[in-house]
Amino acid sequence: MPIAADSRCSPIGVFDSGIGGLTVMQEIIKHLPQEQVLYFGDTARLPYGEKNRDAVVRYSIENTIFLMDQNIKLLVVACNTASAHSMGKLRQLFNVPMVDVVEAGVSQIVSTTQNQKIAVLGTRGTISSNVHKNAILKHLPDASVISIACPLFAPLVEENFAKHPATRLIVREYLAPLKNSGIDTLLLGCSHFPLLASIIQDELPGVTLIDPAVSCALTIGFLLKQKQLEADVSSGVRSDHRFYVSDDPYKFSQLATNFLGGPILHVEKVSLWSN
Amino acid sequence: MPIAADSRCSPIGVFDSGIGGLTVMQEIIKHLPQEQVLYFGDTARLPYGEKNRDAVVRYSIENTIFLMDQNIKLLVVACNTASAHSMGKLRQLFNVPMVDVVEAGVSQIVSTTQNQKIAVLGTRGTISSNVHKNAILKHLPDASVISIACPLFAPLVEENFAKHPATRLIVREYLAPLKNSGIDTLLLGCSHFPLLASIIQDELPGVTLIDPAVSCALTIGFLLKQKQLEADVSSGVRSDHRFYVSDDPYKFSQLATNFLGGPILHVEKVSLWSN
Repeated sequence: MPIAADSRCSPIGVFDSGIGGLTVMQEIIKHLPQEQVLYFGDTARLPYGEKNRDAVVRYSIENTIFLMDQNIKLLVVACNTASAHSMGKLRQLFNVPMVDVVEAGVSQIVSTTQNQKIAVLGTRGTISSNVHKNAILKHLPDASVISIACPLFAPLVEENFAKHPATRLIVREYLAPLKNSGIDTLLLGCSHFPLLASIIQDELPGVTLIDPAVSCALTIGFLLKQKQLEADVSSGVRSDHRFYVSDDPYKFSQLATNFLGGPILHVEKVSLWSN
Repeated sequence: MPIAADSRCSPIGVFDSGIGGLTVMQEIIKHLPQEQVLYFGDTARLPYGEKNRDAVVRYSIENTIFLMDQNIKLLVVACNTASAHSMGKLRQLFNVPMVDVVEAGVSQIVSTTQNQKIAVLGTRGTISSNVHKNAILKHLPDASVISIACPLFAPLVEENFAKHPATRLIVREYLAPLKNSGIDTLLLGCSHFPLLASIIQDELPGVTLIDPAVSCALTIGFLLKQKQLEADVSSGVRSDHRFYVSDDPYKFSQLATNFLGGPILHVEKVSLWSN
């Protein structure tokens, strides 16, 4: 499915397991306001973080086909677990430019750390894949990387408990190994975790938190320019973004409205093959 | 697949989305020590509680076929969400005696309440199905039923946070509507929730908590007797129970060992059709 000649006008497709990828979408809209974004949240099959590799790869393939059917010009894999397990397969199968949060996050953290003592937080699936650690060590072979799986963070965010006192206790529990560890930078290696950034920062004052969303948006801008796929600036600020989910659109709409700070009007439920 | 003539020796099959159903298994072992139990935890596809109805029905069908392939003589659906969505379909499709936790829990609570003011806790899927409420009202048309969805309880139990102080705060948050509500009984309408019973009891002193597992085990005993399917008592106390999961057997084994208070030796990973 090669990209058509008029594809400058086509949308950017973003997928995530749920609402977490909206952190990435928000940065795309901020940095590339002339671009239309289609967002797919695979809410029927979340959380990806505790699923086995094969299942996540299959979900990622199905999500990509759905978005390519909507004629996207560029794919953003906003879910770190999906990136960790599936990027090799997706790049092999599909003929569309791709940006993934893992690569974006790693390039940002290796250029930020001063003392090469780095922490990575993620879901169990992402952390046990070692994808961030391996990529960091490729850039900085002498770096010391502490990886911590935090399987409850995404459900807490999805359930709107991000600001609840219980969440602070759970964050404290998971981050205990980082106290006095000497790390100077910490990668938020799951798209849901930026929603917990202020609590994480309270626990680790002085540590620089890296949210891959910013670096992701910059990479997208660079890639669109390189491939001459940028939307015409004269098309103005786009507001016709579209949202698709695989489960209850109402729940997504409520959470996403909180999240993006404005009403999410067009949320549509879609059925994927094996959903 | 009719039950074979020698099926007194066959095992009882239990399925749940994860470890929660071990509460039911524990009661079966206690009340019917001469029976062998096969347990299937669909850990690759948990949590069921937030999934849509169609997906849960399909998972339940696949789980049942897997257990029937192991030659079970009776099926126990230990997951309330699966019971809520799938019992009609399972009873229509499969030729095996079945016991489900929803029916067991409801029959226990309607015979326990004195003032007919009842609370039901469950996953979002179970609660929005209204399966408990409708069944309670069929027995007690004048009952007042307060249903509360508690989507974080199962992940907290699965992540071994059942005794963590954060869990107490989350329990308090979800149960706030029950304070001074006058309820005298509360149904633990998810197989994971008995693991939080002592915290729930602290929040609601004087309220009788109903764990359907006990009533489930008694119903199983009754049904086996009625259908002349009881194992011979002379076969002694069985310890050759078997455990199957659809994801990491090691994680299950660790949690289940904590849970049942003895080492779980034989955990096998199996692949279902659409897993």
